[in-house]
Amino acid sequence: MPVEVVAFDGDDTLWHSETHFTVTHERFCELLAGHADPAELSERMLATERRNLEIFGYGVKGYTLSMIETAIEVSGGSVTAADIQVLLEAGKEMLRHPTELLDDVRLVVEQVSLSHRVVLVTKGDLFHQEAKLAASGLGELFDRIEIVSEKDERTYKRVVDDLGVAPDRFLMVGNSLRSDVLPVVAIGGRAVHVPYVVDWAHEVVDEADLPAEGWWRLDSLAGLADLLARLG
Amino acid sequence: MPVEVVAFDGDDTLWHSETHFTVTHERFCELLAGHADPAELSERMLATERRNLEIFGYGVKGYTLSMIETAIEVSGGSVTAADIQVLLEAGKEMLRHPTELLDDVRLVVEQVSLSHRVVLVTKGDLFHQEAKLAASGLGELFDRIEIVSEKDERTYKRVVDDLGVAPDRFLMVGNSLRSDVLPVVAIGGRAVHVPYVVDWAHEVVDEADLPAEGWWRLDSLAGLADLLARLG
Repeated sequence: MPVEVVAFDGDDTLWHSETHFTVTHERFCELLAGHADPAELSERMLATERRNLEIFGYGVKGYTLSMIETAIEVSGGSVTAADIQVLLEAGKEMLRHPTELLDDVRLVVEQVSLSHRVVLVTKGDLFHQEAKLAASGLGELFDRIEIVSEKDERTYKRVVDDLGVAPDRFLMVGNSLRSDVLPVVAIGGRAVHVPYVVDWAHEVVDEADLPAEGWWRLDSLAGLADLLARLG
Repeated sequence: MPVEVVAFDGDDTLWHSETHFTVTHERFCELLAGHADPAELSERMLATERRNLEIFGYGVKGYTLSMIETAIEVSGGSVTAADIQVLLEAGKEMLRHPTELLDDVRLVVEQVSLSHRVVLVTKGDLFHQEAKLAASGLGELFDRIEIVSEKDERTYKRVVDDLGVAPDRFLMVGNSLRSDVLPVVAIGGRAVHVPYVVDWAHEVVDEADLPAEGWWRLDSLAGLADLLARLG
């Protein structure tokens, strides 16, 4: 079956995101170095994020609140207002950070759009995702923008339905095995995994859980048009 | 022109929202009573919210971050981690708060759905709005759900386009003159204003700025079906 719709993930597929979290997390560790070592801080922070995920969802605002919560917790309530203000500002800096496209992004999306309908399916905070998309200058290349709160089978079924396309004509391109590959292959779609330089621990998947077929891996987006040509 | 699509706003039109902000704000004022009086706290908090709106957007997570920022500011950095934790918890309570429908909501939406396409057009945090909609039990009554980051003319034009309906066949029902009435009438649609018991200062509009026609005001949703019948 030829692919009709090519869907791109946003964060860490089209533009850098996780590296900003990494930089912020390093500042968080420096700030709280007097209370815990980096390994413990990383563990406590991830535990807070996971605990809060069901009420905050994904995104920088929830991440910032989780940093403040973890800082109060690991310091036994002794963290100062000045330190909390540093964390608040770090969150704002992430939200204000210019959108930096990955290599070849504009070229590849333009190239694919000549032969396929291209859409954006991105997860996270509505307001921040819209801001990043606007700043990316890629908005007009997409036939449709889907900003979703979770990328699971239900979401992809709804997206494919709304697009009026059969699942086996839908191909998702993204850096997350958990969010861009597994649920898409599970509903009968296809996926291309383009790993990013760093993964958020929450998104990591055991390679043993990966499906045998229905997906491919590319080192970078540059190889996408060739792969699509091979798929027919 | 008969109305084809009736769109409902969510917060303070279908379910209570602003009253939860009011309750939280009262706790914020009690907590910081040693640093400033309620009038000053309200003014400082609104100033922080407005300043942050362009990077946070609407919603409880941004509101919580703004409360923490204001607390640090008005206390001159002397607010304790324990007090900040109270604010964090207040934010989480708002996010966890059960969805409470306004009077007659289910009945009215069901009634209108017999004769019109009904959609939800709600502004704010994607994750929280989805959670409130799911908890409301109203999800299956709507033909389409639009969770948007801002309710301006551009957004309504896009919504009306996506629905495939002419603007003059589209009627918006909501509690905010600024978000549910003005932009809809401006693009040639119609609107019904159903005031809520309290308005967020940011949403207040000078009555002199209201259009002469294209909109109606109802005391409650209960009168909506009768109004629609009169409009043909």
